Amino acid sequence: MVTDPQSACFEAGIKFGSLYHQFAGTPVSPDSARSLERAMAESIENQPHCESVTVDILDDELEATLADSAADYTELTGSLMNVEMRIEYEDVTVRTKMEMEDGYPLMKLVSVEE
Amino acid sequence: MVTDPQSACFEAGIKFGSLYHQFAGTPVSPDSARSLERAMAESIENQPHCESVTVDILDDELEATLADSAADYTELTGSLMNVEMRIEYEDVTVRTKMEMEDGYPLMKLVSVEE
Amino acid sequence: MVTDPQSACFEAGIKFGSLYHQFAGTPVSPDSARSLERAMAESIENQPHCESVTVDILDDELEATLADSAADYTELTGSLMNVEMRIEYEDVTVRTKMEMEDGYPLMKLVSVEE
Amino acid sequence: MVTDPQSACFEAGIKFGSLYHQFAGTPVSPDSARSLERAMAESIENQPHCESVTVDILDDELEATLADSAADYTELTGSLMNVEMRIEYEDVTVRTKMEMEDGYPLMKLVSVEE
Repeated sequence: MVTDPQSACFEAGIKFGSLYHQFAGTPVSPDSARSLERAMAESIENQPHCESVTVDILDDELEATLADSAADYTELTGSLMNVEMRIEYEDVTVRTKMEMEDGYPLMKLVSVEE
Repeated sequence: MVTDPQSACFEAGIKFGSLYHQFAGTPVSPDSARSLERAMAESIENQPHCESVTVDILDDELEATLADSAADYTELTGSLMNVEMRIEYEDVTVRTKMEMEDGYPLMKLVSVEE
Repeated sequence: MVTDPQSACFEAGIKFGSLYHQFAGTPVSPDSARSLERAMAESIENQPHCESVTVDILDDELEATLADSAADYTELTGSLMNVEMRIEYEDVTVRTKMEMEDGYPLMKLVSVEE
Repeated sequence: MVTDPQSACFEAGIKFGSLYHQFAGTPVSPDSARSLERAMAESIENQPHCESVTVDILDDELEATLADSAADYTELTGSLMNVEMRIEYEDVTVRTKMEMEDGYPLMKLVSVEE
């Protein structure tokens, strides 16, 4: 009833939702961006079937956000990061990424390969 | 390259990961369980393609947790709730649920129907 | 070394930080705002010494945010809500509120009374 | 109406509540514990008046939790970490720590010094 590629895509979605809603709202500045990227990637890589996570907090976007603000940090949101993941489930490899579209972060399936 | 059923399963996973990691850790007691269930369901139903979410915080499990504790509330975790969701993506309906297995919350695809 | 009013203020801060970082990022729309307000208030009222929490999600701000967006929901942030709390610790009553200042949510002690 | 030591204690509480509710629920394993400790400390140090944060994820507690489980990771909770913070507000220094008491994480004021 459920195929391996479908299960692989479900697993990929779980990881993306987890990463986003665990870490959105975290205070972030240029100085703390690197440690946050690493912790996000390593924590989500703990989840089953999650082979690789890359989080890239966008320094230019972060600086632009801070330039409009009286504060020297902001809260992490989808507009401040690119994320890519690779999920392996049985013989299926799923690649996903997050990018901004119409002002909110869109999580996308890039490829599903058996 | 990516089929509608695969996309539907990806969307279903996103909602499950979002719900879990947004709300895990929320202080919960028997008196506040009903309002939390409702807010969880209604907030995640806002997400695209998410037609229905049911959250059932398990009163018996909650009472058992509190009986072992000096506090009159605890933090929401997977062992304290059942969740079911229905995702509609194009012509595909995906049903999912969460249940405990081997001591941690397992999110499962129940069915994928075109 | 630590006075009751100081402890009361510490407790008040814990509740504010908890409320904000537990719920920031939650998907919210005009239709789901009421259930989220109630769940936020009731969950934080579970915490020790927390007598009263009022969360007011600002419909006008929410509508204005959505008017600029292709989506029909957004993520909860400090700019979309007013929060007031009353903490009772021993014989001390602390009142606090959150309001926007210079573009980020400022949590403030309103009064500390013995 | 509100003294500097009271405000300092309020700020200290905010940081503790923020840290706990932002990061509780994060997937953690022995291999990812160090990056999570660092990201937690650096992110909360961004907040105003927060001079120093130390997070120590307890490897022995983590190993013990995993020994009882079929999984090779768990979710971060208060029982798995010690946290210490130093807050500076005007001329006041507040030291705080978190430790387990009666089965749930208790955040404590250690000292308030002018």
